[in-house]
Amino acid sequence: MPSFFDRLATAVKQKRTPLVVGLDPRYASLPKSLQRGDALDARAAAFREFSIGLLDVVAPLVPAVKPQVAFFEQLGWRGMQALADVVEHAKKLGVLVIADAKRNDIGSTAEGYADGWLGEQSPWRGDALTISPYLGDDSLEPFVRTAKERNAGLFVLVKTSNPGGKFLQDLTAGERTIYGTVGDLVESLSRDLAGECGYGVAGAVVGATYPEQLAELRARMPHTWFLVPGYGSQGGTAADVAGAFDSSGLGAVVNSSRAIIFAHARDEFAGLDWQQAVEAATQQAIADLGTACPLA
Amino acid sequence: MPSFFDRLATAVKQKRTPLVVGLDPRYASLPKSLQRGDALDARAAAFREFSIGLLDVVAPLVPAVKPQVAFFEQLGWRGMQALADVVEHAKKLGVLVIADAKRNDIGSTAEGYADGWLGEQSPWRGDALTISPYLGDDSLEPFVRTAKERNAGLFVLVKTSNPGGKFLQDLTAGERTIYGTVGDLVESLSRDLAGECGYGVAGAVVGATYPEQLAELRARMPHTWFLVPGYGSQGGTAADVAGAFDSSGLGAVVNSSRAIIFAHARDEFAGLDWQQAVEAATQQAIADLGTACPLA
Repeated sequence: MPSFFDRLATAVKQKRTPLVVGLDPRYASLPKSLQRGDALDARAAAFREFSIGLLDVVAPLVPAVKPQVAFFEQLGWRGMQALADVVEHAKKLGVLVIADAKRNDIGSTAEGYADGWLGEQSPWRGDALTISPYLGDDSLEPFVRTAKERNAGLFVLVKTSNPGGKFLQDLTAGERTIYGTVGDLVESLSRDLAGECGYGVAGAVVGATYPEQLAELRARMPHTWFLVPGYGSQGGTAADVAGAFDSSGLGAVVNSSRAIIFAHARDEFAGLDWQQAVEAATQQAIADLGTACPLA
Repeated sequence: MPSFFDRLATAVKQKRTPLVVGLDPRYASLPKSLQRGDALDARAAAFREFSIGLLDVVAPLVPAVKPQVAFFEQLGWRGMQALADVVEHAKKLGVLVIADAKRNDIGSTAEGYADGWLGEQSPWRGDALTISPYLGDDSLEPFVRTAKERNAGLFVLVKTSNPGGKFLQDLTAGERTIYGTVGDLVESLSRDLAGECGYGVAGAVVGATYPEQLAELRARMPHTWFLVPGYGSQGGTAADVAGAFDSSGLGAVVNSSRAIIFAHARDEFAGLDWQQAVEAATQQAIADLGTACPLA
């Protein structure tokens, strides 16, 4: 099996878009037809049905989906059981799965997380996982080891899209910002393990809401694929993410969640059923990103 | 209900020890009598039986237990279902539960995690949760809000016990180290919300393996309760953690996992059954920490 980033590059070229759809099921925002009461098992069933319905619409259109683990975890193990079904359905449809879990720990504990999300036996076995770097360089190693073994990918938090991201990430220590320090570490991991597409085992999360830093990091991290949140509902535009791509239009995927998955609530899509609205919003985002991404 | 840290202070005084037992079920290290094959459901059943057996021994002896979520998550949702049973059993026995999950995200996503671990409906509802600060000050707010509402506690990663912790945490930006910057933020949250015992809603994870920094942070964060990993198998001694306590012996709990829960494998406890070995190791750690902790 090719490496995750080689598979992602192929999928981006095939689907002709860097758009990733975020599976973020907030219960109150689901189509009313899927809401069946507040009990945890009813909500978990609704998340399953909603997410599988989303996958049926978006899997043919985009290279990858990004389930936000927090929303499933909010429902306890029943939510995590629903997530296992969602991941399985995504694999059946042939769309790549980036588990957005932002995990981290040290040593054998980090191995536990890596195994839970990328391991062979895991019911949540995704293609890639987001991880957090606060615990330091040695905390990333078990994840890198597992990702290499499994041809899976990682996305390390580098520069996040929220206003408070600057609290630590923008501090300068010596010659470098903190996000630059983490970015250099990630780039060094990826340079050593670059696949055919030129990108290595560790990607980086870099927000759309800070376009200058996005362009700076693109130049600084030539072997690191970016996962870009913050496009769409969080305020990032296609122009803001333009700096994330390499000259072939590869090197970044751009996530949109709410604007797509809750498109049934957008006035412009009134009259469509919820899945038709999702399809229309996905096509709209693909067209919009097409203006910024130089895919041949 | 009193705040988490008031309840923790009461429990520490009652049990006369700051020892917390970490529930870190690594399958290969379990007593042979509990191992029943490699399938996920068999391993989850073994984790349940082992953890409940541990609780039965340690709940009368220590103020709190700290399940390491990674090991349960490694088994997929079946592991997380077992964890729900473990948390329920701990509550029945009246021992406080600190879920060591190191979660973090932003906005409504962070609310999802807070609700999943501290919320009223959650099957994993613990008394406190560990969280990571890389995403910044605004990422902590949803956790603080939920913790206040639920009289729950948080422990924010400040200075961790692993060698790589220094990679980011020990960098100096302006006048402050990164761990100092995070520590000051946590202290400001706790100062504003200090309970009867003098400690506020947010605690800090500060490793036993860096005693100088532990003492520095104790002085710098007078309203912040510490959770100290790294004692025991990771190399920290009772003398190393002495600086974590205030003059009454409060203000810190000290975690030990492997040396206690896998005590059946220690030569000195040969001849005891695994639960007797756990009890002996727990009493040994309590006596050892008693030399460092000035509890009246």
